[in-house]
Amino acid sequence: MGLNRFLQLFIPKESKFFPLLRGQVEDILTASDLLVEFTKTEEHYVRKDLYKQIKELESHCDTLTLTVFEELNHTFITPFDREDIHNLASQLDDVMDLINDGAKRTILYKPEQIPLEITRMAELIKESALCLEIAIGEIDKVRKNPKVAIEQSANIHRIESMADNEYEMFLIKLFRHEQNAIELIKQMEIIQMLESAVDKTEDVADLIRTIIVKYA
Amino acid sequence: MGLNRFLQLFIPKESKFFPLLRGQVEDILTASDLLVEFTKTEEHYVRKDLYKQIKELESHCDTLTLTVFEELNHTFITPFDREDIHNLASQLDDVMDLINDGAKRTILYKPEQIPLEITRMAELIKESALCLEIAIGEIDKVRKNPKVAIEQSANIHRIESMADNEYEMFLIKLFRHEQNAIELIKQMEIIQMLESAVDKTEDVADLIRTIIVKYA
Amino acid sequence: MGLNRFLQLFIPKESKFFPLLRGQVEDILTASDLLVEFTKTEEHYVRKDLYKQIKELESHCDTLTLTVFEELNHTFITPFDREDIHNLASQLDDVMDLINDGAKRTILYKPEQIPLEITRMAELIKESALCLEIAIGEIDKVRKNPKVAIEQSANIHRIESMADNEYEMFLIKLFRHEQNAIELIKQMEIIQMLESAVDKTEDVADLIRTIIVKYA
Repeated sequence: MGLNRFLQLFIPKESKFFPLLRGQVEDILTASDLLVEFTKTEEHYVRKDLYKQIKELESHCDTLTLTVFEELNHTFITPFDREDIHNLASQLDDVMDLINDGAKRTILYKPEQIPLEITRMAELIKESALCLEIAIGEIDKVRKNPKVAIEQSANIHRIESMADNEYEMFLIKLFRHEQNAIELIKQMEIIQMLESAVDKTEDVADLIRTIIVKYA
Repeated sequence: MGLNRFLQLFIPKESKFFPLLRGQVEDILTASDLLVEFTKTEEHYVRKDLYKQIKELESHCDTLTLTVFEELNHTFITPFDREDIHNLASQLDDVMDLINDGAKRTILYKPEQIPLEITRMAELIKESALCLEIAIGEIDKVRKNPKVAIEQSANIHRIESMADNEYEMFLIKLFRHEQNAIELIKQMEIIQMLESAVDKTEDVADLIRTIIVKYA
Repeated sequence: MGLNRFLQLFIPKESKFFPLLRGQVEDILTASDLLVEFTKTEEHYVRKDLYKQIKELESHCDTLTLTVFEELNHTFITPFDREDIHNLASQLDDVMDLINDGAKRTILYKPEQIPLEITRMAELIKESALCLEIAIGEIDKVRKNPKVAIEQSANIHRIESMADNEYEMFLIKLFRHEQNAIELIKQMEIIQMLESAVDKTEDVADLIRTIIVKYA
């Protein structure tokens, strides 16, 4: 580890890992945008088509993740500790999986309606993905100028705390007004997945903070 | 790692990490005590007030956890392997989160009643927290005298196995007698979180055992 | 790590770790076989007896896992990186836990019926366990001849994708036709655990792939 840290000083500025991570974030951003639309439409066939597009992005993001893992096994000097890059890629993949799972569950469960709070949660995922885009976009400059990443990390924490509130308010409403237990289960599971997606973006933000502290 | 292990022989006896870990355990212990009270009261406003106190402890424990992480990034010689301290702090934080989540869900869901088994589960969390207090209290002496930690680890295993039984018996009863599916969901989720809190204390106990074996 | 990788070249061909991992897979295979039977029988007392046998296998597998962990702490040169062996043992233990949990939940919840899809899921666990048996059986030869492990890993991916489909189809059917919310919860939780067991076998397969890439 110490050796790697030393050799990192001589590494070429552009690493093959950064474009892959940025590619993952692009997939997440596009998917979260489609997800907002997905929760807004009332036509099941439109929703199915949007889900198909999300699924393709999930599969593409998967390929990028695997490429990061393979590259890690073949690269001698890495721009950050091997483990940090591995975790970044893996947690970005988790964000994507949760977006996909939320959409998939909605298709499977066919809830009677998609309440406004679910749309709001999708919008928070998108806002958080936008912060990730900026933070990961500057990740190669994080040693010299960590300011951007620190700012975006703080933004994501704010967004996650809003998602937390949104989620709690929704559960209170759901348990107070939904008489149909099966409908309640459907909505509870869908919003849980989307809330977990926001949580995961926060994990990514925390990881970026850890990397900054390490290399400061 | 080998180097760290060697340098650890010369480390000052009192490390800054131990008081932080002990602080986490104190938070957990106080919170579990409040949780027992929380499950026993029938007044919603008393419960809300107790939850507020638990939430503050959760937030305090969070700060301690982050301090451990930051210290780890700035400390050259650590009393145990970096990873072990990181995991200890992180798993103690998980225990605290689950206590807080259990209380929060109860506030959100407003179940018709809090059955005795939920109080019993809160008591088991508290018993396990007491064992953790003793074990973590002696963690600086674990190399010379691992006996205390081993004893407490065995106690926690016994408690976790009791919690397992309690949980199973409760689920059998719930699925046999609760006709109201929504009430069933509420109680199932609340007890699940509290049972996970006990499980997490066992994870901490296992980690302490691993550390003992490593340094024996 | 570099040193370990070098010393591994001189390690005796038969390591004490491989028989332990193989023992874990044998437990999983036997348990999955009992699980198929378990889902097929309609007699509750037969089911209870089969669960007892699964539980004993779970406990035996637990002992093997702990033995791997202890051996890792006492062994200087390991055939693969310490972390890889640790993760293999730990993930095999997770597979076993999920099989046990699926059976336990069925006993606790007493669902009115066990639908064919649950039996099918148990069969997929067994098929995947058979692939693990072959792959782990050859794990000591993975450096010279990774072909067998790669083949079995591909098979497990195919099986997991079938399990995914089976699970989704079942959820659609369940939410469309099951009017009784409590019955729906029971069946949903049971099949979820079994599906997670298949997912975990895929994690093991992925880990084996990672090991192959590392040592190729």
